[in-house]
Amino acid sequence: MEPILFYGVPEGCSFGSIVALEWLGRPYRLCRIAMPEEVSGARYARINPVGETPSLMTAPGVVVSESLAILNHIGARATESGLAFPQGSPGFDRLNQALAFLNTSFFNAFTPLWYTLERASEGDEKRVLTDYGRSLVVRAHCHLEAMLSSREWLVGDGRTLADAYFAGIARWADVHHAVDRRDFPGLDRLYTRLREDPAVRFADAIEHERPARSAGGFVGHVGLEEALALLPG
Amino acid sequence: MEPILFYGVPEGCSFGSIVALEWLGRPYRLCRIAMPEEVSGARYARINPVGETPSLMTAPGVVVSESLAILNHIGARATESGLAFPQGSPGFDRLNQALAFLNTSFFNAFTPLWYTLERASEGDEKRVLTDYGRSLVVRAHCHLEAMLSSREWLVGDGRTLADAYFAGIARWADVHHAVDRRDFPGLDRLYTRLREDPAVRFADAIEHERPARSAGGFVGHVGLEEALALLPG
Repeated sequence: MEPILFYGVPEGCSFGSIVALEWLGRPYRLCRIAMPEEVSGARYARINPVGETPSLMTAPGVVVSESLAILNHIGARATESGLAFPQGSPGFDRLNQALAFLNTSFFNAFTPLWYTLERASEGDEKRVLTDYGRSLVVRAHCHLEAMLSSREWLVGDGRTLADAYFAGIARWADVHHAVDRRDFPGLDRLYTRLREDPAVRFADAIEHERPARSAGGFVGHVGLEEALALLPG
Repeated sequence: MEPILFYGVPEGCSFGSIVALEWLGRPYRLCRIAMPEEVSGARYARINPVGETPSLMTAPGVVVSESLAILNHIGARATESGLAFPQGSPGFDRLNQALAFLNTSFFNAFTPLWYTLERASEGDEKRVLTDYGRSLVVRAHCHLEAMLSSREWLVGDGRTLADAYFAGIARWADVHHAVDRRDFPGLDRLYTRLREDPAVRFADAIEHERPARSAGGFVGHVGLEEALALLPG
């Protein structure tokens, strides 16, 4: 079977995994999961008990969750293309460092902001968590800008899976009005260039249910019931 | 040269990387970094501009930062031992999923609690961030307990680098009085077993500057100045 990516909407961090699958170019399918209701429901818990997207069914009944594990799974199949690197090589270390920074400092900077939004926080809780989240988002942008230095891509001289992952999370700065990206000229250039990438445009069209043209191996959607039927028991 | 691990004290999350190096059994050195002052200073910024430990100098002037990248670097050398798995294998996916969960949901659950401690927060800020952090810590423990199921180790049937990483972060629940680990019997058993592991006892003795007996390849400390002299320029 083709792998099935379970992606969350709206504004899922699974966006980066869709971009990575497009760049990989091999056949895959998608399964759409509404957040927060469906992702935290009992049916999706059979795919990922943590109640988060993305998850990737790599073979009937075999599911990998967590963006970093999914991107490393895709990366194992993309070492020829330069999107990822062979285990044990210096590139493998550099890519993992960038992915880990994106996964902890960058992704998690937004967690308090999503928390206030999803709980519809008010008063002290909203004020404290918003200040706290914004300070983390600014700090993560500063570090990423320094990491990018004057290069075009986050790791080395060409695009890698780190850029795919960045494309999905960077949008959240706009959702939460947390920073003005123009204060970070390198990141602003990278983001603008990524927004024009066919895979990023495809992922955006998929999320918003607009007509989407795959430049990769997308072979269609599958419903959650159909995917669940592939699980054992 | 032997790799040099820059580890933070007190209570660094680099603890897991020390345990992993001990389990790997190959020669390595350690460089002690005091937190928060030294880790955020200009000298250490030449090792890791993000100002965090752990970092690993893998060759003269070549530095890998972020726990997940360091553990994957060690893992690339530990696939024979079962501590990690070959790129592209199902075990590689399972280990990366566990490491990623530990790195995002588990590690980051404590971030607001460290933040209030380091800033000496008071009033609303302290109350809101403490409630928020504790709710994340409880949630992460629930998911980890379910993930462990009735097994002995976090991934598969034997110990892996995920258990090493867990050993360092799990202590923070006690530092912050965030959960009673006995409410999570599987995690409590795992933690108790790990505390008796020679590598974990070694890492604990190193952190607390007690006489430490390496069961692995520890060949001594190096000062920050000596390590900086290995950088280019």
